[in-house]
Amino acid sequence: MDNNVKNLIFSNDVSGNIDAIAKELSPAGIYVIADVNTATFVVDRLAKTSTAIAGAHRITVKSGDINKTIESVTDIWKELNRQGATRNSLVVNIGGGMVTDMGGFAAATFKRGLRFVNIPTTLLASVDASVGGKTGINFNQYKNEVGLFCNAHAVIISTCFFDTLPREEILSGFAEMIKHAIIDANVGLGDLLRSDISAGTYTGSNFLEHVRRSVMVKQDIVSKDFKETGLRRILNLGHTVGHAFESHALRHGIPIAHGYAVAWGLVTELLISHMTLGLPTDIIYPLAKFIYENYGAYEISCDDYPSLLQLMGHDKKNESPDAITFSLLRDIGVIETGITVDPDTIRAALDIYRDLMHI
Amino acid sequence: MDNNVKNLIFSNDVSGNIDAIAKELSPAGIYVIADVNTATFVVDRLAKTSTAIAGAHRITVKSGDINKTIESVTDIWKELNRQGATRNSLVVNIGGGMVTDMGGFAAATFKRGLRFVNIPTTLLASVDASVGGKTGINFNQYKNEVGLFCNAHAVIISTCFFDTLPREEILSGFAEMIKHAIIDANVGLGDLLRSDISAGTYTGSNFLEHVRRSVMVKQDIVSKDFKETGLRRILNLGHTVGHAFESHALRHGIPIAHGYAVAWGLVTELLISHMTLGLPTDIIYPLAKFIYENYGAYEISCDDYPSLLQLMGHDKKNESPDAITFSLLRDIGVIETGITVDPDTIRAALDIYRDLMHI
Repeated sequence: MDNNVKNLIFSNDVSGNIDAIAKELSPAGIYVIADVNTATFVVDRLAKTSTAIAGAHRITVKSGDINKTIESVTDIWKELNRQGATRNSLVVNIGGGMVTDMGGFAAATFKRGLRFVNIPTTLLASVDASVGGKTGINFNQYKNEVGLFCNAHAVIISTCFFDTLPREEILSGFAEMIKHAIIDANVGLGDLLRSDISAGTYTGSNFLEHVRRSVMVKQDIVSKDFKETGLRRILNLGHTVGHAFESHALRHGIPIAHGYAVAWGLVTELLISHMTLGLPTDIIYPLAKFIYENYGAYEISCDDYPSLLQLMGHDKKNESPDAITFSLLRDIGVIETGITVDPDTIRAALDIYRDLMHI
Repeated sequence: MDNNVKNLIFSNDVSGNIDAIAKELSPAGIYVIADVNTATFVVDRLAKTSTAIAGAHRITVKSGDINKTIESVTDIWKELNRQGATRNSLVVNIGGGMVTDMGGFAAATFKRGLRFVNIPTTLLASVDASVGGKTGINFNQYKNEVGLFCNAHAVIISTCFFDTLPREEILSGFAEMIKHAIIDANVGLGDLLRSDISAGTYTGSNFLEHVRRSVMVKQDIVSKDFKETGLRRILNLGHTVGHAFESHALRHGIPIAHGYAVAWGLVTELLISHMTLGLPTDIIYPLAKFIYENYGAYEISCDDYPSLLQLMGHDKKNESPDAITFSLLRDIGVIETGITVDPDTIRAALDIYRDLMHI
């Protein structure tokens, strides 16, 4: 199987690109899947300049991760059937990761597989969900429990829809971009941290170039480990502690955005990397400053350490029930996976995290 | 993607083979999916000689094509989740095509894909559903409307479970074997028609060799056209008329088995082949005699022709709404697909079919 998306397009001419794809494939009908928000704010807008979108059938799903369910997929299948989709039809998913994950799964399983194109409309979906071929839904209260690896025929990544995103959503996606810049020295972490992410500056071609570099890091990794058996685990950087923060916050009734949790998790895991593998601190301090200034801090005290450690041990990507393992850094771009870290080191890193976050 | 099943095993030592596969893969848990009938008659029997099956978790589904639904798949996912299946677990589907199609789909989509092994227990599932990678379910009253192409890690084909099958089920599978012997001259149609299919003779190694030759015909075709875009249509031989007979019988409240419909469809389509492409009649007459003697006849009169022709035109694999197209034979092993046949020729073939079937 070719592990890469056939057509990974970075362009703010979304209409021109989707029309070109429609012309090339000449599908028996185009079916646009969007949630109630994107249907109004994005699809209607695209329909004014794209003949493919203007002439497409529409399938609208409820918004939010809570509706990423088999019931919603069943509704999509019913609509595809009712509106006469054939194996030669084309599905176009327009929205955040929820829509592209679920729409991709519905398309990949209808009549044993329709072609689909993803047009992510959030920064997080652009830099995280757009490549890697993960499609799926939540099931039985487990996230992404059902799904399959299946690449879109094309993904069109643009920054032109970001103007309607709340700043919190931009920052959520930006945390994954920071992670990619840590994993791959070619991205230029310094450049990224100096880039302007104040309102209104992230829709242009400069920011699109940052997004492109970020996506290529993930593309490069998943192409070498499509089914997530080894190398791909380095994308888990920041997530072991990040998921613990996220679950901890949820338990205390004050949920935090996933991207924010990853940002704070990255700071902590880089500190663990320093203590374990000698990662230089001059990489960590500017990053911690940037994150504190833009994301604020997740406030924890020593009293939270036992439950945080317990949560890290139960993370679904943790490899052993008796130890806490991490993907850690020796230097920018030099990652080691599956490293067991003792609880004392983790506690010490959390102490320094609190110092750097002025807690 | 490799289009062939990695391990296509023909053996009456099913236990030895499944135990060897379990040893090689050392999965985190084995999950056997069977329907209520196979669970008792086959799985319990296998558990006595196979340590892998004896130690496996069990998931039992309702039997019959009517339960090949998303609700049954949801039940399987729930059981896999409840019984702790991980991405490193192994699913073993034991049963007819309904179980292998649906169990394959459930496995291929749980946690984005568990490995699965199919052990078909009917002749039809052995020669038809075992290779080709088609998994799926019926949806919204459409057959196999949802699913995906995904090969089993291994398929173990044996004749040892056939002793419990009603003769009608053997004959249903045998019709597909006849079709394969017509498609591929190397199989030896004459040998097959002379083979003994009276009760009790089709569980041994002689019959297993006939089954093996038959499966290899399909394997050869699907390996060249996995996603069914062209060549694979030759497997539709006998099915355009066969499906029309099947639907016609259903409309009249006297449903006939699919394999029987295919047998009678084959006779009619060979007659059309004679009239259209000059297929020699000395191929057709012995086959028609064999089918009449073993399957009896599907009784039709001239009055049924208009509705039969209408049904042929509406067959889902018919390529044009304005014409009836067929896969037809010039000689044994020489097939042409997508041939438009005029209604007069079809009616004439139905006349001769009635003669040959003593109607």
